Amino acid sequence: MAKNIKTRADDYAQWYLDVIKAAQLADYSPVRGCMVIRPEGYAIWEAIQRDLDRRFKDTGHVNAYFPLLIPQSFLTKEAEHVEGFAMECAIVTHSKFEKGADGKLAPSGKLEEPLVIRPTSETMIGHMYAQWVQSYRDLPILINQWANVMRWELRTRLFLRTSEFLWQEGHTAHETADEAQDETLKMLDVYADFAEEMLALPVVKGAKTESEKFPGADTTYCIEALMQDGKALQAGTSHNLGQNFSKAFEIKFLGRDNTQQYAYTTSWGVSTRLIGAMIMAHSDDDGLVIPPKVSPFVLAIMPIFKNDTEKAAVLEFVDKVVEKLVGAAGVASATRSSGDIKTYFFNRLTEQRVLVDLRDVRPGDKQYHWEQRGVPLRMEVGPRDVAGGSAMLKNRIDKSKEVVKLDDMSAEWLQAKLDAAQQILFDRAKAFRETHTRDAKTYDELKQIIEKDGGFVRCYFEPDKEAEAKIKAETKATVRCIPFDQPAEGGTCILSGKPTKTQVIFAQSY
Amino acid sequence: MAKNIKTRADDYAQWYLDVIKAAQLADYSPVRGCMVIRPEGYAIWEAIQRDLDRRFKDTGHVNAYFPLLIPQSFLTKEAEHVEGFAMECAIVTHSKFEKGADGKLAPSGKLEEPLVIRPTSETMIGHMYAQWVQSYRDLPILINQWANVMRWELRTRLFLRTSEFLWQEGHTAHETADEAQDETLKMLDVYADFAEEMLALPVVKGAKTESEKFPGADTTYCIEALMQDGKALQAGTSHNLGQNFSKAFEIKFLGRDNTQQYAYTTSWGVSTRLIGAMIMAHSDDDGLVIPPKVSPFVLAIMPIFKNDTEKAAVLEFVDKVVEKLVGAAGVASATRSSGDIKTYFFNRLTEQRVLVDLRDVRPGDKQYHWEQRGVPLRMEVGPRDVAGGSAMLKNRIDKSKEVVKLDDMSAEWLQAKLDAAQQILFDRAKAFRETHTRDAKTYDELKQIIEKDGGFVRCYFEPDKEAEAKIKAETKATVRCIPFDQPAEGGTCILSGKPTKTQVIFAQSY
Repeated sequence: MAKNIKTRADDYAQWYLDVIKAAQLADYSPVRGCMVIRPEGYAIWEAIQRDLDRRFKDTGHVNAYFPLLIPQSFLTKEAEHVEGFAMECAIVTHSKFEKGADGKLAPSGKLEEPLVIRPTSETMIGHMYAQWVQSYRDLPILINQWANVMRWELRTRLFLRTSEFLWQEGHTAHETADEAQDETLKMLDVYADFAEEMLALPVVKGAKTESEKFPGADTTYCIEALMQDGKALQAGTSHNLGQNFSKAFEIKFLGRDNTQQYAYTTSWGVSTRLIGAMIMAHSDDDGLVIPPKVSPFVLAIMPIFKNDTEKAAVLEFVDKVVEKLVGAAGVASATRSSGDIKTYFFNRLTEQRVLVDLRDVRPGDKQYHWEQRGVPLRMEVGPRDVAGGSAMLKNRIDKSKEVVKLDDMSAEWLQAKLDAAQQILFDRAKAFRETHTRDAKTYDELKQIIEKDGGFVRCYFEPDKEAEAKIKAETKATVRCIPFDQPAEGGTCILSGKPTKTQVIFAQSY
Repeated sequence: MAKNIKTRADDYAQWYLDVIKAAQLADYSPVRGCMVIRPEGYAIWEAIQRDLDRRFKDTGHVNAYFPLLIPQSFLTKEAEHVEGFAMECAIVTHSKFEKGADGKLAPSGKLEEPLVIRPTSETMIGHMYAQWVQSYRDLPILINQWANVMRWELRTRLFLRTSEFLWQEGHTAHETADEAQDETLKMLDVYADFAEEMLALPVVKGAKTESEKFPGADTTYCIEALMQDGKALQAGTSHNLGQNFSKAFEIKFLGRDNTQQYAYTTSWGVSTRLIGAMIMAHSDDDGLVIPPKVSPFVLAIMPIFKNDTEKAAVLEFVDKVVEKLVGAAGVASATRSSGDIKTYFFNRLTEQRVLVDLRDVRPGDKQYHWEQRGVPLRMEVGPRDVAGGSAMLKNRIDKSKEVVKLDDMSAEWLQAKLDAAQQILFDRAKAFRETHTRDAKTYDELKQIIEKDGGFVRCYFEPDKEAEAKIKAETKATVRCIPFDQPAEGGTCILSGKPTKTQVIFAQSY
């Protein structure tokens, strides 16, 4: 049906890019690996930010901003950290251009020490915390930063893996190891709740193995989601950094017992990658599907008419619909940039809107337009609808249609429709994950499942660097996590054949 | 009184830094010229963002995000632009570190073309608009970006001038010159209204002279504010870029008349500099003063007690006060990072809170603490207050005190107190500006006023590059703007002695 979008069965990778292009979410930029997040995509990021920010503040965190550029010497202070990040970073070496003998501009004003565009901010923030913390009374520090970061990536894919991306990074410092561990797990829960409640994305919570953890962490925890092609996607991580960074950056304090102690730190982050996860988990061959709770537009109303008489009657009816849904006080927002699209706030706090598409294009094209953009609900209003005092409602998520009486419409009615659609989306994704989670008793079974079906493979496995490297080389699958949810009985490690208590999830991943 | 803060009369520049330090708004970072915006400062930026973002959306704009890095070749496409920005920028030349023969890390992976950290985004955005615009139907494009930018500065000052700073940059493209001009002026009005209503900062609206305009603009408009030391501060700019960038980046469209035309573009921005303006305009020798409308905390409640019996009674009374002010539904937010400070949302939409300071420190120290941090209202509750069913309210802005009965307290009462304080602040700043705006009839008068009194100097002057350079060299004053508000009659140019219709404002500036 959608000629500009490949089907998932046909070419999943191209389908993903086509969905993004058709919905105008993002574009590649002239700088390799960096993307432009277009207004339709950025509005989803704003919805994500708004909700996460509230969750961070409700758990006692405050926002701050630290410098973009990090001195080279900082990167090298934590041994694992430099290995993990120095090999793929954007390095600033000069502070101006000057005209050379050939009349062309060339970099000039060489810096004494190269500066790195932050790939993550543990080092810079560690340096500052060392200055802010003197006594146990200065702890905990619970700070989050919304920022851009940069990691030079070879293979990029819009939203999922780009050289520059937007994210939030929480950085906290604590008096005791227990407090740091509590914080690490608390923020993992915040991410899991957010992913499930807002993005309708069921996730598995667990720990990373040593090979997969953050460079510089004692332990990395993660939430893992399953995409429609059977690959896993890491949707968020929370790291217990122990005293690694506090020792590297001298975050010391005078303790309650009057001795100098090193603080315990954590960090945690999610990024614009979540938009990629949302697209891959929910969209279909007709284009984008957005979970209602993060959809900037919740309803697209499409007036249909052939002449001025019909137009007058239809638009009068549409005005009544809008008043029913957003209230008489619903302020008409300004026309969108594409012109002739009127929008009204349905919820000022979430900035979600109802839109009326008044453009002079064919009704079929309007349908197609909002369907591809993933608006959860569409409503057609033509002369016959007006005569019947009703309108046709189409649900983007389950493709259902129904005739709705004007008298039955209200803000509560619309909210209930949206909530129901959100639930359908979550249930569908969860059912998909359950169907695509399989158990393997042997390494052969694991290989077979990965090759034939993909998805999550649950098995007993004793995490081990060499064993994981071997399995990755042979199957392209990695341990996604050691789920918190472990069976009481143990089992036999699929590779070593030895008894183990540890069940893991293997999968190929993004 | 405040031993950690110099007085304005004593050392204005040091006073400014002391105010910031005492209120913990920002710190210098280990990267020269770059600042760390600490939580107390960042919360003010969030309040600014929240309100401005609403104003941008209410005028039809949408947000998006464009890449941080700009190819060198882009900078050179607009002749004035490259002159203005290429001489002070952070240049990325390498994509990784590698270990050299000496075992030390050195930049490696040299890029084919150097990349510049955006000093502003006209070039990158122009490049993208050229791809998005084909027909007049694709116009207008009304996009804003919240981002970090970088300009290598020699002399830096927290908030007012830093190498990296946070800002918003609006970039719009239009079909006609008239529409672009309307947009440019509309956004200047948005800035002026915001500055006056939210920051209590009276501003003069006007145009820049040719020498002072944005590199690449046809015309730059600005809002200018006056600081307490008599220096001007440019608080926001809006540029009509004409067809300069559309010609440099080929933003072309098929017009209504079926011919190819170049779009007309605008750009406009305000930055974290506004926080510097706010501090310099309103704070006093006791420390920070924050306009109530952008103050993260609107009221600091300080319980005072000597023993457990007093404590129980006082805290019970404080609970009643809080319930009166934020309602029974007022959810206690989590304890702040410094511990023992309870906060309650007074307004969830603006994220403004009431706080109760339960720290175990002397009452005088608490007073001092919140006074230096600029919280608009403070309330003391001791045993005698409880007995009298009242509390002592102290106003940070006019230093007034009053006893308030518990029965008289309510959310409306608190809001009215805040609104009155906001008005006092604006009136005071406006009166100051009026006292410090003087007329000069001759160049000698201008020189005398600048040297002796500072402030705004209003005079007739025919803008001219050479004349302005001479005056700047001799007085350090520049034409801050050609105000929109011009007298009907003309006058005599202070420098050339020729008749002119143009009245300007001269001042030394930040």
